[in-house]
Amino acid sequence: MQLRKIILSLVMLSVYTFHYGQENNYTEDSLMLRNIYSEALENGKAYEDLRSLCKDVGARLSGSVSAEMAVQWGYHKLKEYDFDTVYFQEIMVPHWERGTKENGYFQSKDGKITKVNMLALGGSIPTNGIMSGEITMFKNRDALLKAKKEEIEGKIVFIAQPMDQKMITTFQAYGACYPIRGYGAIDAARLGAKAVIIRSLSLSEHEHAHTGTMHYEEGIKKIPAAAISTKDATILEKLITESKDKFTFHFEMDCKVLPDIKSHNVIAELKGSENPNNIITIGGHIDSWDVGEGAHDDGAGIVHSMEALRILKEMGYKPNNTLRVVFFMNEENGNMGGKTYAKKVKASGENHILAVESDRGGFSPRGFSVDGNQEHLDLVKSFEKLFKPYLLHHFEFGYGGVDIGPLKDEFENIGLIGFVPDSQRYFDFHHNANDIFENVNKRELELGAGSLSALLYLLDRYW
Amino acid sequence: MQLRKIILSLVMLSVYTFHYGQENNYTEDSLMLRNIYSEALENGKAYEDLRSLCKDVGARLSGSVSAEMAVQWGYHKLKEYDFDTVYFQEIMVPHWERGTKENGYFQSKDGKITKVNMLALGGSIPTNGIMSGEITMFKNRDALLKAKKEEIEGKIVFIAQPMDQKMITTFQAYGACYPIRGYGAIDAARLGAKAVIIRSLSLSEHEHAHTGTMHYEEGIKKIPAAAISTKDATILEKLITESKDKFTFHFEMDCKVLPDIKSHNVIAELKGSENPNNIITIGGHIDSWDVGEGAHDDGAGIVHSMEALRILKEMGYKPNNTLRVVFFMNEENGNMGGKTYAKKVKASGENHILAVESDRGGFSPRGFSVDGNQEHLDLVKSFEKLFKPYLLHHFEFGYGGVDIGPLKDEFENIGLIGFVPDSQRYFDFHHNANDIFENVNKRELELGAGSLSALLYLLDRYW
Repeated sequence: MQLRKIILSLVMLSVYTFHYGQENNYTEDSLMLRNIYSEALENGKAYEDLRSLCKDVGARLSGSVSAEMAVQWGYHKLKEYDFDTVYFQEIMVPHWERGTKENGYFQSKDGKITKVNMLALGGSIPTNGIMSGEITMFKNRDALLKAKKEEIEGKIVFIAQPMDQKMITTFQAYGACYPIRGYGAIDAARLGAKAVIIRSLSLSEHEHAHTGTMHYEEGIKKIPAAAISTKDATILEKLITESKDKFTFHFEMDCKVLPDIKSHNVIAELKGSENPNNIITIGGHIDSWDVGEGAHDDGAGIVHSMEALRILKEMGYKPNNTLRVVFFMNEENGNMGGKTYAKKVKASGENHILAVESDRGGFSPRGFSVDGNQEHLDLVKSFEKLFKPYLLHHFEFGYGGVDIGPLKDEFENIGLIGFVPDSQRYFDFHHNANDIFENVNKRELELGAGSLSALLYLLDRYW
Repeated sequence: MQLRKIILSLVMLSVYTFHYGQENNYTEDSLMLRNIYSEALENGKAYEDLRSLCKDVGARLSGSVSAEMAVQWGYHKLKEYDFDTVYFQEIMVPHWERGTKENGYFQSKDGKITKVNMLALGGSIPTNGIMSGEITMFKNRDALLKAKKEEIEGKIVFIAQPMDQKMITTFQAYGACYPIRGYGAIDAARLGAKAVIIRSLSLSEHEHAHTGTMHYEEGIKKIPAAAISTKDATILEKLITESKDKFTFHFEMDCKVLPDIKSHNVIAELKGSENPNNIITIGGHIDSWDVGEGAHDDGAGIVHSMEALRILKEMGYKPNNTLRVVFFMNEENGNMGGKTYAKKVKASGENHILAVESDRGGFSPRGFSVDGNQEHLDLVKSFEKLFKPYLLHHFEFGYGGVDIGPLKDEFENIGLIGFVPDSQRYFDFHHNANDIFENVNKRELELGAGSLSALLYLLDRYW
C-alpha cells in the first residue's frame, strides 16, 4: 500500500508537471483566479441577474408563455453583455399544463377529513372531476413491487418512502428515491390501482408539495399521479400505521397534455482566437417547474454560466477556443434542449471538446465532477492546488449534467464536467414553492460563478 | 520541488501507519463513523435542542435573567441525557444592559431626516438624553487614524468601512474589519469626538444593525458607540459623498454598565475508563448577544457539543479518557467562563490534554483547524481519509476558539481544535436580529454534530 501511494504521488506529480511545468504559469494563473473571484464578489452581476430572472420572469415551464419570456430575457441579457454572437436555436418541446383545480383530502373511517397540500406530477393525466378511492399504503417502492393485485385493484396507492437522511450527498438520496415519482404510476397501474400519490421528494419536513417528471408505459393504463407534502405524508403514514383503519383519498386535478410546441435554446459566444472551431460550452437550463421561481433549479445555473463568460470578457481574456454559454430549454420534462443541441452541433461540423454544466443550485462551491476519460480527470485534478484558496476540494469522476449529457453520443472524446456545490439544502427547495430568489445566498451564488469562470479559463488554456 | 513532495508523502505515510497501522482499525473506525453520522442524521437531538434553546430561552446576554435561564436549561438538558456527572462551575461575569431607548436619525442641511436602525455596542456608555452632532465620515480606520484633531473635535465620527467581500473565508474579513468596532471609540475619542457610529460588521446589506464588544482605554474619554445597519450605512455614505453637504446625527441610548455578577459554566462528563484524569473537552458558549436568539452564535456550538457526547453514549462507547462537555458563559463580552475554567482545571490537578470548540455556526462542515504542535496537526490530518465520505477536507493549523484559548496558558502541550463549518452565510446573522433558529438548516447542523462526535471518538482513541 505504501509503495502504491508513492507511485500514485509520482503519477500525480507528472500531471502537475505537465500542466504547470513552469512556475510562472502557476503564478500567472493564480493571479488570474484571484482577479476572477474578486470580480465575482465585488462587481458580480449574478445576484441581480438571478433576481431579475426570478422576479421579472418567474417560474417558466416548457411550452408556457413564461418560458418564452425567459428565452427573450436570456437573449437580451446576453446581448447586453455584448458577447461576440448571440442567437436562438429552435427546438420542439413537450407541453404539459397544470390545471387550476388541484386539491385533495383524506378521510378516516369515522368521517374526519384532513386537507393535504398536493401537486400533480409533471405529465400526469387529469382526474376528470373528483376521484375517490380507498388508500393502500406502501412503505417504499420495493413493497409495492411485491404486492398482489388483490391488495391494490381499484384503490389509490400511497407510496410513503422518504428520502434517506443518512446519505451524505443528497443527490444520492434523491437518486435512490426518484423511482417512486418516475415509475410509481406504472408500478401501481400494473396492479390495477386507479391513482398514485407519493410522499414529496424532500429531505425536510414542510408543507410544500414538490413536482417533477413521471412516466407512463405503453400498454399500461395511465393513472393520475400526484405528490403530497412531506408534512402531510408523515401525518397520513402515522394515522394509517397507528389506527390500522381504512382511509379514503379524494382529489381533483385538471392538468392537460397538449401538442408539442416550438421553443428555443439561447446561445452566446466568445470566439476563439486560435481554434474557433473548438467549442467549450458552459450552461444551465432556462426552463423550470411551474411552482416557486426556479431560483436554485436552475436560475443559479443560468446566471452562473452567463457570469462565468462575462467575467472573462471583463478581464480582457482572449480565449484560444470558442467559449459558449448555452441556456438549455426543457431540461425538466424531456431534455429536448440538450438533445437538439448535441445533434445540431454535430451536424454543423463543430468540434465540441468540453462541456460544463451548473444544475445543482447556487450553494457554496465544493468542486467539480468529471464524466470523461482519465485525461479529463487528470486535467481537472491538476487545478486542485489553484482552487484550494477558494475552498474547492472535490475533483472526481462523477456526473456531468442532464443538458450536456447527449453530447457524449455525438462526440466520442468529449469531457463533461458538472459543478458541485454543497448539496445539503438543495432538497429543501427542489421543485417546490420554496425555490425562490430569497433562498439563494448572494456570496454562495457569486462564489459559484467565480469557480465556473476560473474553470472555464483553465480548461481553455490547458486542454 | 518534486523531491520535497515525495518526502512529504513519505512523512504523511508514516503518520498514517502510526495511527492506522492495522487495516482492521481503519475498518472499525470507518464503521463507527458511519454509525455516528447515521445517529446524528436519523435520530439526532441537536435540532430540537436548538429550537428549545432559541425559543424556550432566547437571547441570553451575560448577567441577564435569560443567561441564568440558559444555565438552568443546560444543566437540566445534560441531566436528561444522563451523563456521568453534571455540575456548575461558578464564575463572575461583566454585566452590561441595553436600554430601551435606542433610536437615531441623520439630517441633511436642508432639514430632511432619515431614521436609522442602530444598536449600542456592547459595553458602551449611554448618551444621557439626546446627543446631537455634526457627522464626520471616514472611509476606514486607517483614514481615521490619520485624521487631525480639528477635523473631529466635538463631532460624531462615522466609520463607513465595510467588510471585504473579496476575502474567501469570511472570518478573515471579520478580523480585518473588527478594529472599527473594538477600537473605534478609542480612536475617535483620542481626537476629541463626542461619539462614534460604525457600519455594522456584516457581509450582506440588510436592515438589522449588529452589536458586539467594544473597548475603552484608561485615560481616554469614554464616548457612546453604536452600529448602524449596513443598509443605512450605505445610504449615509452615499449621501455624504455625493452631496458633499454637512449632515448631523441625533441619537439616544440608555444602556447601563452594572457591577459584575455571579454566573456559571455548565459541565457534564463521560468518565474515562483507562485514564479518567486525562480530560478532553468539547464546548461552545451558552451566552449570546441580546438580539436575535443566538442560534448560530453559539446555540449551534452548545447543541453540537452536547450531541457529540450523547451520540457516543448512545453508541455504548466507553472512552479511555474523560470526555467533558462545557457550556462556557460570557464568551461574548469578557470570556470569564473560558478564563475561569482554565484556572480551575489547572488548580484541580487534572491533566487537560485536548479541547475542541464549536463557535462558527451551524453550517455545512468543512473540517477542523488546529492550534497546537505538529503532532496535534499530524493526528488530525491522519483522520482525513476517514472523514472524506462526510465531505470534510480542511485539516490545517488555525484557530481553536475563544473559550478554550486560556487553556494554553495553563497546559503547555495541550492541543486546541476548532470546528470549521462553511463560513459564507455566518456574517448575515452574526450578532444581529436575524440570528434565529429558522436560519439554521437541520441537516447542516446535524452533520456538524456528527463530525464533532466522530472527532471526539478518534481523539480519545488515538491521542
